[in-house]
Amino acid sequence: MKLWQGRLSGDVDQLAAQLNSSLAFDSRLAQVDIRGSMAWTGALQRAGVLTAEEAKTIQDGLQAVLTEFQQEGFVFSDADEDIHTAVERRLTELIGPLGGKLHTGRSRNDQVATDFRLWIKDAVLRVDELMKHLQQTLCDQAQSHLEIIMPGYTHLQQAQPVLLSHWWLSHFWPLQRDRKRLADLLEETDVLPLGCGALAGSAYPIDRHKLAEALGFSRPAANSMDAVSDRDFAVNFVYISAMIGTHLSRLAEQLILFSSREFGFFTLSDAYATGSSIMPQKKNPDMLEIIRSKTATFNGQLMGMLTLLKALPSVYDKDMQDDKPAVFACFDTLELILPVMSGVVLTLTVNQQIIASALDPALMATDLADQLVKKGIPFREAYAAVGQAVRKAGDSGIPLNELPLESWQKIHSTFDQELFKVIDPKYSVAKRAVFGGTAPDAVSDQLKLAQNELGEK
Amino acid sequence: MKLWQGRLSGDVDQLAAQLNSSLAFDSRLAQVDIRGSMAWTGALQRAGVLTAEEAKTIQDGLQAVLTEFQQEGFVFSDADEDIHTAVERRLTELIGPLGGKLHTGRSRNDQVATDFRLWIKDAVLRVDELMKHLQQTLCDQAQSHLEIIMPGYTHLQQAQPVLLSHWWLSHFWPLQRDRKRLADLLEETDVLPLGCGALAGSAYPIDRHKLAEALGFSRPAANSMDAVSDRDFAVNFVYISAMIGTHLSRLAEQLILFSSREFGFFTLSDAYATGSSIMPQKKNPDMLEIIRSKTATFNGQLMGMLTLLKALPSVYDKDMQDDKPAVFACFDTLELILPVMSGVVLTLTVNQQIIASALDPALMATDLADQLVKKGIPFREAYAAVGQAVRKAGDSGIPLNELPLESWQKIHSTFDQELFKVIDPKYSVAKRAVFGGTAPDAVSDQLKLAQNELGEK
Amino acid sequence: MKLWQGRLSGDVDQLAAQLNSSLAFDSRLAQVDIRGSMAWTGALQRAGVLTAEEAKTIQDGLQAVLTEFQQEGFVFSDADEDIHTAVERRLTELIGPLGGKLHTGRSRNDQVATDFRLWIKDAVLRVDELMKHLQQTLCDQAQSHLEIIMPGYTHLQQAQPVLLSHWWLSHFWPLQRDRKRLADLLEETDVLPLGCGALAGSAYPIDRHKLAEALGFSRPAANSMDAVSDRDFAVNFVYISAMIGTHLSRLAEQLILFSSREFGFFTLSDAYATGSSIMPQKKNPDMLEIIRSKTATFNGQLMGMLTLLKALPSVYDKDMQDDKPAVFACFDTLELILPVMSGVVLTLTVNQQIIASALDPALMATDLADQLVKKGIPFREAYAAVGQAVRKAGDSGIPLNELPLESWQKIHSTFDQELFKVIDPKYSVAKRAVFGGTAPDAVSDQLKLAQNELGEK
Amino acid sequence: MKLWQGRLSGDVDQLAAQLNSSLAFDSRLAQVDIRGSMAWTGALQRAGVLTAEEAKTIQDGLQAVLTEFQQEGFVFSDADEDIHTAVERRLTELIGPLGGKLHTGRSRNDQVATDFRLWIKDAVLRVDELMKHLQQTLCDQAQSHLEIIMPGYTHLQQAQPVLLSHWWLSHFWPLQRDRKRLADLLEETDVLPLGCGALAGSAYPIDRHKLAEALGFSRPAANSMDAVSDRDFAVNFVYISAMIGTHLSRLAEQLILFSSREFGFFTLSDAYATGSSIMPQKKNPDMLEIIRSKTATFNGQLMGMLTLLKALPSVYDKDMQDDKPAVFACFDTLELILPVMSGVVLTLTVNQQIIASALDPALMATDLADQLVKKGIPFREAYAAVGQAVRKAGDSGIPLNELPLESWQKIHSTFDQELFKVIDPKYSVAKRAVFGGTAPDAVSDQLKLAQNELGEK
Repeated sequence: MKLWQGRLSGDVDQLAAQLNSSLAFDSRLAQVDIRGSMAWTGALQRAGVLTAEEAKTIQDGLQAVLTEFQQEGFVFSDADEDIHTAVERRLTELIGPLGGKLHTGRSRNDQVATDFRLWIKDAVLRVDELMKHLQQTLCDQAQSHLEIIMPGYTHLQQAQPVLLSHWWLSHFWPLQRDRKRLADLLEETDVLPLGCGALAGSAYPIDRHKLAEALGFSRPAANSMDAVSDRDFAVNFVYISAMIGTHLSRLAEQLILFSSREFGFFTLSDAYATGSSIMPQKKNPDMLEIIRSKTATFNGQLMGMLTLLKALPSVYDKDMQDDKPAVFACFDTLELILPVMSGVVLTLTVNQQIIASALDPALMATDLADQLVKKGIPFREAYAAVGQAVRKAGDSGIPLNELPLESWQKIHSTFDQELFKVIDPKYSVAKRAVFGGTAPDAVSDQLKLAQNELGEK
Repeated sequence: MKLWQGRLSGDVDQLAAQLNSSLAFDSRLAQVDIRGSMAWTGALQRAGVLTAEEAKTIQDGLQAVLTEFQQEGFVFSDADEDIHTAVERRLTELIGPLGGKLHTGRSRNDQVATDFRLWIKDAVLRVDELMKHLQQTLCDQAQSHLEIIMPGYTHLQQAQPVLLSHWWLSHFWPLQRDRKRLADLLEETDVLPLGCGALAGSAYPIDRHKLAEALGFSRPAANSMDAVSDRDFAVNFVYISAMIGTHLSRLAEQLILFSSREFGFFTLSDAYATGSSIMPQKKNPDMLEIIRSKTATFNGQLMGMLTLLKALPSVYDKDMQDDKPAVFACFDTLELILPVMSGVVLTLTVNQQIIASALDPALMATDLADQLVKKGIPFREAYAAVGQAVRKAGDSGIPLNELPLESWQKIHSTFDQELFKVIDPKYSVAKRAVFGGTAPDAVSDQLKLAQNELGEK
Repeated sequence: MKLWQGRLSGDVDQLAAQLNSSLAFDSRLAQVDIRGSMAWTGALQRAGVLTAEEAKTIQDGLQAVLTEFQQEGFVFSDADEDIHTAVERRLTELIGPLGGKLHTGRSRNDQVATDFRLWIKDAVLRVDELMKHLQQTLCDQAQSHLEIIMPGYTHLQQAQPVLLSHWWLSHFWPLQRDRKRLADLLEETDVLPLGCGALAGSAYPIDRHKLAEALGFSRPAANSMDAVSDRDFAVNFVYISAMIGTHLSRLAEQLILFSSREFGFFTLSDAYATGSSIMPQKKNPDMLEIIRSKTATFNGQLMGMLTLLKALPSVYDKDMQDDKPAVFACFDTLELILPVMSGVVLTLTVNQQIIASALDPALMATDLADQLVKKGIPFREAYAAVGQAVRKAGDSGIPLNELPLESWQKIHSTFDQELFKVIDPKYSVAKRAVFGGTAPDAVSDQLKLAQNELGEK
Repeated sequence: MKLWQGRLSGDVDQLAAQLNSSLAFDSRLAQVDIRGSMAWTGALQRAGVLTAEEAKTIQDGLQAVLTEFQQEGFVFSDADEDIHTAVERRLTELIGPLGGKLHTGRSRNDQVATDFRLWIKDAVLRVDELMKHLQQTLCDQAQSHLEIIMPGYTHLQQAQPVLLSHWWLSHFWPLQRDRKRLADLLEETDVLPLGCGALAGSAYPIDRHKLAEALGFSRPAANSMDAVSDRDFAVNFVYISAMIGTHLSRLAEQLILFSSREFGFFTLSDAYATGSSIMPQKKNPDMLEIIRSKTATFNGQLMGMLTLLKALPSVYDKDMQDDKPAVFACFDTLELILPVMSGVVLTLTVNQQIIASALDPALMATDLADQLVKKGIPFREAYAAVGQAVRKAGDSGIPLNELPLESWQKIHSTFDQELFKVIDPKYSVAKRAVFGGTAPDAVSDQLKLAQNELGEK
């Protein structure tokens, strides 16, 4: 029997019932729903609605239902339209009509908002743990590659030499910002809706501060209408997923590029590559491509959540039921791709030789300009002179460091023999010793900062 | 065994394998995949790759696999990474090594593109059928309410009186445009990728025109790289879903409003309403709210598809695997909400009395202005005069038709007794007799046009 | 002359130059760009790159350029491709070749990231101020309506009576959460990219901590590649705009509904309504509709930003140039709609009489069930009994409070005369005295909490 | 004066007026608005509302206003809230009170819908022309490169050799599908709203079929409420832009990759590349990056349009005003990036030598497997054998074609000397002679098909 039968006479059309049912996804809330009901029972007892004995019976009954879920022995009935009715139906089967007292003074509106917050709080901690693990892996790689110099790219063109460790760490910090977002979300979610009833507040003298404490929330929601209406925390979860997804997509893209035959910097472990059904030579970075593709899941779910909430006319409209599949989809995806990304990073092989030979002498063009600056030439003039040299070398089809000195001096008389020392990646990175720069010492310091962040959390 | 094992030595990490597997969703392609393989067998035979006997054995084997699917007896193996490998693995179990010849000259790239097109062609026809049924229901309602006049709204303010039938039909035409979109999509999808191999074309002398014919496609794709790369038809399916969803959301919104206590024009059938877990008096339009909420699904999936495809660097990248869940989610949602919307429309009660009493005399303000125009007053001047009368009535707290004639004449001397005849909804709708207007005869003509569209399809 | 000319020989195609130019939008960064350059000049001096005199000349020149901008006398040249080159070009015109030293050791990559962060920090403070003003207006309305009881809605159906003040405050708290988001964003943005060069760090001994201090940043970015690549703060600005927009859209929707003829709770001020070009009686809530429509701007820009950043292959790709129009569009929209919403709320008239007469006695159905609960009936049984009474009254076409006692008692013998006292909105709201509930005292306490939040900020 | 003044007493708040005004963007509709008004004048004359003389005067006045716009001499007034009121205001200034008759029987609702359709019809033709030009450029490139073999990629890994011409044409066909979409949109847009009034149909005996003909529409809209409410055609324009943008982003991405130092297949013309402000050696593919970035504009605007229209409650809500900036933004972007993409393609240099040396012998692995198949080995067995050979060569660090015959035969005895002939890109492409394949003759045929499509349009 539906909770609300008695008021409505006709049977609900079967397809409509299927559309209305949220059981397909909200059964994941079973454990937090029972946790909430147990706390609610305590609150009703404190409010004098239930005797100690009644409360005990209900809580034992709820424990029995919980055990059924934990042992995967819970049997849903066709009439269960959501997890809340399923739990209450089963409770009443187990302990009789007393089960009907559990719903006193609360509504599914405050109940589901509470369940969902409990669930998301757990989910945030789990995602944070997986993020931290990926960060640790990046730090480990950074630690291992403090000697290797690679071309740094802008516009997918070689720009300046950087330490490979510096590049690894450049993917550490975005995740750190995401983890700050997760921490902020945890705080936002830490507010209790229970006791707000359908929208106007419970009509029973519930001590909502004690109830909050019992459920591990830091405070009760301040406005009952807002409390049942607020889904900001759910949108925020999806948004943070989209940010994580964006960061992973950029890392994935670069790993895919660097694993191509043409770049060749990395070789992916066979554990994270697949073959082709027809081309025997292929080794494809499928997992990285799928990680990249999950931006579609995250961005799509985010757009869905925002579309959903636009201009809803009431405190609670049924549309809001669709908030849960969005959050679950993001969580499940993160729980899969974060460890896979860690695995990919951990197991790839760095092809040191290929990286070294990829360094174009023209990468040091900025250093050459800086050298002229040191001799008093304004940067713009220095820049133009080096630009001409690069072009002359290019036109002659020779690397920049093979252009003879006289050619340089024809362009700008200030050039001298020293320029050939400057065309050296080691020289170039060493000079970038500012805080946050790519010089070996600066990168070592940075790595310590990064490891510190991991230690603190 | 994976199709591509032999090239890669390490085992694929288990989570990575789970991430890589598409079986969870592409098993829906089983039947079209086998249909495609049967036709491919014929093509290989025509190309001299298979003997007649070999072809017969393979096709019988495929038929046996198909039967297993149809009887839900097919057993997946842990090593099946997608539906294509599952079918081929089972075929080989049934008929031996000859099964290994089936994949000759094709690739999963052209295979999956073919399967997906076959599936979408069927899906389009199914959605079109459900759309047509909803349109028929709207026509039936229009037929039944040719006598009822309701307030027409702009900006959610009463604007001008219209026939209820006219309003019903205003929701017919958007669906007609969507069905035109479906027809265009069917044509776009009607192109065969099979025979394009991984990307460069099959190396065997396949007659792709005959193959297209055998599979019911009107023509083979003209460029093998584009053929395996093209997912326009899938995006288009999702886009059309979003347009349908948008149209349904507007109908749903208006039905929700008109079923509120404050409007009261319609009463929803109990079969399409639900109650509250705590408020015994509630009768909630949950199904309509969920239909409205599905704009989130459609818009989100559309954004996902476009995010997915952005800037993919190759002919085929694994990202494209995520195209199918998007299409399936849209199809499943449409298959549920279209009949439910038909049911809601079919079974609601029209509260004729309430609608009649809702008609504010000020709805006829435009008609009053038009009447002055007839007497030679420029529209702008007439408009201003009626505006003043409306305001005077509002300030006095009386309906417009109770403002005495002298008050009218003080505003503009041209007003005369006739104005009270004009303040009549019947008069107002009757005057709007242009093609497409709300006059009863015009609406009857329109209804015939609408029914014609349904007859033609 | 383009900064990078000298290297490339051909002229850039004119349309391409137009496409490449960001001047149309980034000229808004003029003042922060100059602020950044002044600080950079100081850093170069501290690093020994510039003499005190050179630094002075450059800073005076920059001040002159700034004045030109402030007095709207700055003249752009056709060759200026962005604001950075325009400023430097003008500086060099004013102070000669020395101007060419300004760009020493920095790149447009770290420069634009710094400018953008400076701009957004100001923008966040401005938006926060406008948000606070709207919150104050909501508090003022809440203060004024502590006596008025209105129907509370779920599913757009009357649910339970609430204080109008409670409803006003239900729109206060979402804005408070948004302001917390703005505060978190301010912290995220408070990191200095300058000194990171193109990607590898400046090659000059810049003290980035001192530079951060000079520009009012709390710390320098820890990784130079991440520093020029990071646009999280910009996405975050757009995301917060989308959340604000979503909250405003829900408030707007409810105000539109409540201002319709059918609800009639509010009358909008003429200052925030418009008329029709053809229907003289119309008074349309155009501003509220446009506020609602801006969810489109925000959600669209958010989706754009996420699309933009997906899978970018390098540290800096030119795609990132399109981050600024997105942020500017959101800011400009917020700066317009926030005060307009404040104005709408401040100036509307509350139609107390209409609200009072809108309260359906069935709103107290939950209270009736609660009363039976007090007498020992399990909630589910009580719920069913009241449900039957509601239905009986509805079938008889009478309000719930006119159903005779015997009819009630036929349904459940426990009903007694007291029930008619319960069917009273005042009784109903008074009972919801929990923290966060709608009872007058609870709402007064809540209002104090809200005002406290405003005081603290 | 606002058109609707007279009804409302207070002044509209200034910010609210700014928010409400659409003049900033809808002034682009000036010419089509006047075109529509001229036709409407004719219709009013045919309906007997205007005398021939009055009609003549109005039309002459409109012509004068049009001339002012064409000569950029039109002066807007502060009180003009949109283009429609501006035109009518100016007309009345020019011809006196008779101007007030022009708005008889129409509304801004049907007027703006008509203007917008007229504008979009022109825009579609312009975009189609630019698309066709880009297609022509791709065909020209295909024509020029029928001899060049390049590596074809899947998963960004070398897959099979293809003709460069085949690759060029793989970017032709997606544009052809987009042009079909444009043609379908033209048909959808070819429906006249004018004569539908605000929502209920004009109250004057307008011959809407004749009016449609006069304005070049194929038919009048069948339902007046739908006619003023329908924005499908605008969403469709934005959707098609998003599809074009997606296709261009993939082409841009591949061109960026192929122009990198690591691939090196193409060199961009200096006319379509830019430099760095700090790195003198850089030559950046900025225009291609910006083209890629415009997916953000298109996808964002699409999401905006769909957000906008979700669940609008009336026939016309002011939200719909924001449809125009979305369409204009897409059009302006397309008008810029399409010719730039044509320019990039037209002017790039193909580095034939580099492409030739990039061809890895392992590209022919599939051909080797096919050769075993020819000798009767099932494809799966052949595939495994070649896979082992590829691996053995890789482990030994030698190209596949340098693996000695005995090594091959140890893997599978069927291999013989002929395999070395098979490891030849020319052999490989020649074998893919199916319709749509990459063999030279097949590509020549395909090119003719493509050129045919251009000829037909």
